[in-house]
Amino acid sequence: MTTVFNDATRFADDMLSGFTRLHADLVEKVHGGVVRATETAPGKVAVVIGGGSGHYPAFAGWVGPGLADGAVCGDVFASPSTQQIESVARAAENGGGVLFSYGNYAGDVLNFDLAQDRLRAAGVPAHSIPVTDDVTSAPADDAGRRRGTAGDLVVFKIAGAAAEAGYDLDAVTEVARRANARTVSFGIAFAGCTLPGADGPLFTVPEGRMGVGMGVHGEPGIAEQDVLPSAELASMLVEKLLAERPADHDGRVIALLNGLGGTKYEELFVLWNDVAGLLGKADLQVVAPEVGELITSLDMAGCSLTLTWLDEELERFWTAPATTPAFRRGHTETGAHRQRRVVEESGPAGFAEAAPESRAAAAGLLALAERADVALEAAVDDLGHLDAIAGDGDHGRGMSAGMTAALTALRAAVEAGAGVSSALGHAGDAWGERAGGTSGALWGTGLRAVADRLSDTTAPGAQDVAAAVRAGLDHVLGFGKAHVGDKTLIDALAPFADALDARVAAGDGLRDAWSAAAVVADEAARATAELTPRIGRARPLAERSVGHPDPGAVSLALILGVDL
Amino acid sequence: MTTVFNDATRFADDMLSGFTRLHADLVEKVHGGVVRATETAPGKVAVVIGGGSGHYPAFAGWVGPGLADGAVCGDVFASPSTQQIESVARAAENGGGVLFSYGNYAGDVLNFDLAQDRLRAAGVPAHSIPVTDDVTSAPADDAGRRRGTAGDLVVFKIAGAAAEAGYDLDAVTEVARRANARTVSFGIAFAGCTLPGADGPLFTVPEGRMGVGMGVHGEPGIAEQDVLPSAELASMLVEKLLAERPADHDGRVIALLNGLGGTKYEELFVLWNDVAGLLGKADLQVVAPEVGELITSLDMAGCSLTLTWLDEELERFWTAPATTPAFRRGHTETGAHRQRRVVEESGPAGFAEAAPESRAAAAGLLALAERADVALEAAVDDLGHLDAIAGDGDHGRGMSAGMTAALTALRAAVEAGAGVSSALGHAGDAWGERAGGTSGALWGTGLRAVADRLSDTTAPGAQDVAAAVRAGLDHVLGFGKAHVGDKTLIDALAPFADALDARVAAGDGLRDAWSAAAVVADEAARATAELTPRIGRARPLAERSVGHPDPGAVSLALILGVDL
Repeated sequence: MTTVFNDATRFADDMLSGFTRLHADLVEKVHGGVVRATETAPGKVAVVIGGGSGHYPAFAGWVGPGLADGAVCGDVFASPSTQQIESVARAAENGGGVLFSYGNYAGDVLNFDLAQDRLRAAGVPAHSIPVTDDVTSAPADDAGRRRGTAGDLVVFKIAGAAAEAGYDLDAVTEVARRANARTVSFGIAFAGCTLPGADGPLFTVPEGRMGVGMGVHGEPGIAEQDVLPSAELASMLVEKLLAERPADHDGRVIALLNGLGGTKYEELFVLWNDVAGLLGKADLQVVAPEVGELITSLDMAGCSLTLTWLDEELERFWTAPATTPAFRRGHTETGAHRQRRVVEESGPAGFAEAAPESRAAAAGLLALAERADVALEAAVDDLGHLDAIAGDGDHGRGMSAGMTAALTALRAAVEAGAGVSSALGHAGDAWGERAGGTSGALWGTGLRAVADRLSDTTAPGAQDVAAAVRAGLDHVLGFGKAHVGDKTLIDALAPFADALDARVAAGDGLRDAWSAAAVVADEAARATAELTPRIGRARPLAERSVGHPDPGAVSLALILGVDL
Repeated sequence: MTTVFNDATRFADDMLSGFTRLHADLVEKVHGGVVRATETAPGKVAVVIGGGSGHYPAFAGWVGPGLADGAVCGDVFASPSTQQIESVARAAENGGGVLFSYGNYAGDVLNFDLAQDRLRAAGVPAHSIPVTDDVTSAPADDAGRRRGTAGDLVVFKIAGAAAEAGYDLDAVTEVARRANARTVSFGIAFAGCTLPGADGPLFTVPEGRMGVGMGVHGEPGIAEQDVLPSAELASMLVEKLLAERPADHDGRVIALLNGLGGTKYEELFVLWNDVAGLLGKADLQVVAPEVGELITSLDMAGCSLTLTWLDEELERFWTAPATTPAFRRGHTETGAHRQRRVVEESGPAGFAEAAPESRAAAAGLLALAERADVALEAAVDDLGHLDAIAGDGDHGRGMSAGMTAALTALRAAVEAGAGVSSALGHAGDAWGERAGGTSGALWGTGLRAVADRLSDTTAPGAQDVAAAVRAGLDHVLGFGKAHVGDKTLIDALAPFADALDARVAAGDGLRDAWSAAAVVADEAARATAELTPRIGRARPLAERSVGHPDPGAVSLALILGVDL
């Protein structure tokens, strides 16, 4: 379990402070993560990687000459926020555009895509390659839906070397895409990990058993079986990956044997002895293998095997030199300690002139948010437990962090005299920035959509509120690409919006209409227990969550249920 | 726990096979461990490090240019045998003599000293610096009794750089001695580790508590207290070490923050953030710190802080380049892949001509050893549990490995027509070679002492056997430097020898005398439960073993108790 910390909610940030203090020759802390501390050639493509924290050496350990230019570091097991990603990318960018690469998880995709849009809008060319190496998370003919695990390192390393070699953004993107397409991983878990401050592990595996096809966020496997001796485990891992051997391979492969944190080097060397023997028997030549802790999941026990089918160019970039805190190969010239490139910080919020009626509505909204915050805090652990059943257990922490940030922003906005539209939009931005993850992106942009439908010059009537809620729902439907019945917060939000519309149309006042709709939302959230989650969440064991309500729907209903 | 292996008894060897397969560019497997795969300058001092396995990257991970020339790798948590040490040293030696350096534990000291004697006898100059950095294992004015923990790395690295710089053996030894004298460590444990194949951890720490002053072989701490937040833990570690700040320090220190295996990088970075702040406040300048897993204890959770008070020469050698599987600094030229230096292997045993009476006695000894092996195998787990109370839990495994090797050797000797003296001496050598650890060295050389008192030309009578047992006791007393009452196997062996003498003097036949003496040995072994173990075992918590019989005495009594 995670034992050493000061404040569990500050764990990821404290960790990054200690890390950058230790490796000040190579990395520099910026808002949202780290960038190289040394100069890069002007016009060089910036490779920006990232994801949640808790996976060291992924992702901050891989920043430096020959590898990444920056790493975005979200909260533990949570996607970084759009703002964090944008911040790191702007600090890393040096005139050649940005290639984002990260593991393919819903929250990361949402936030990296939003950040990419923002960069492009600001005139910075940007592409993205989400890594999809985990063979257990979707079939080969639907590989775009697979999760990213230890294959991350291969794709990042090859992209980093291509960028260092002077390839332009399109060319770096193309080589990264090929590296990803030719990389497969398969893993098993022996024991779960415990998040900082949590009272128990995200999952447990019975003694003598192992989870097959685990994820790197404490997700259990897709199946369970007895623990195998090393030689049989090696066969299982190798056979599964060789089954996807591409027709055009030339017999040369990268092999990574990754430990998740609690499975130690000695065990990995024993297993490697068996794996290397099998790869040799299959007439494969292993090029520059790596055995060790590459993508961890705190102290989770387990391991995974990754193979990348090489071609000449991929091999050249994989074996090129690199110097980072956690990955060293050959010898790179270290550039001069760089002059910090000035990144425009958004100044303190200035709010448009607002009418007293709208300012009063903002004050009412603040009071509502304060009650919602209390309700949410009381439910944080329950929401985390619900999320741990199918996901990575970060929903409670994420909601709490987002709500707290939104509340602080809302308070500041009300004090600054903002109207209800500006105040709520400001709060939404703060939520998204602080919470990260899928729900952070949805709540942040969703609240912004609601805010945009309100006004700073008039008091919102019941119909305005109903229409604003509808606008929020429409945004979340379009942005999150989920539908009613997919077991997401939409399953509570859509009935709420419908009920609110209906009661307002029937002439109810806002307070009555809202309360009635909140009851509908609560029932709908509970009813999600009977639903099968949508596949797009890239959580192979999500089927386990049948019988448990969706945490996103539950937390939404909880907030809506606060007295108006 | 340790989950991945094929055969638990082959764990250390399989691990080494996988490790050398992975790092064939840097290391080569030899009998007993690894040596560099690349050429060194003729006349260069060979730095040979080592100890038990289960501590990766210690020790095999630190072999390469700028660091060690060879690493001896014992069984898990057990000292390597004298033969293993000698084998690695001979393969590593290149005309400049050998500096041995290793953590200060009884078994390692015994075996490294014996190997040193053998090298010197063969004309190879050799010195030894046991590392004694652990401040909790003895007071500062008795620092020679302290255990070696993560400070190992500092001493090895500095010695390795001095040897690479062309220092001669005396000069390398002197700089290593100074590095050790100026290095202190202090550690804490959150949870124990489980040996391969064992059914539970070596020790447990209650939830929310931590062991203070732990060892790196799964030994618990000298005290227990509540887990502290990171900032307070940092204060505790830093203050304890600053209390031993030498008068002549110049404010420059190496700092290592070591994770034991289950305490992960993120936690270490959080703690480092606090530690670095405190060292700065104490006006200390930290030179090239290391934070990570340096000396692990399988998956044990915990961490330790090490400080080395620098002078100009120590700093120069600490910051010098090095290229090893697990420690990289700067850029070293890698020498050519070396031609394997031929190390004389001892050929198949040839035995002196033996009289039929002595050969018959050898056959009788073999039958006895077979019964003893059965009795020992049945008790392996119990012996391990007894040892885990005060030590590292390897006694059962070590006895089993030694007895099995001795039995195999004895069988071969009897088949080859050896007399009882040669056969027993051969069996003793095999025991010491395979078992390693303190008991391996004592049993191996003790059986050799017994054998030397017997003859290949006559059948041993009762008086010969009693005298031979007495010779074995005398050897163990002189070699192990323990006395009766120190809670070691001597507490059973001495009363056995006395009783055997007395019964033989009274005219009993060998069989009756032996049986009667075995009963005395058994009672004496049980009575060791009431004894306080001697301090020289470097096991601070050995006091815990009061109330439990000494495993060494118990296993001896068990073997003696087999029907003759």
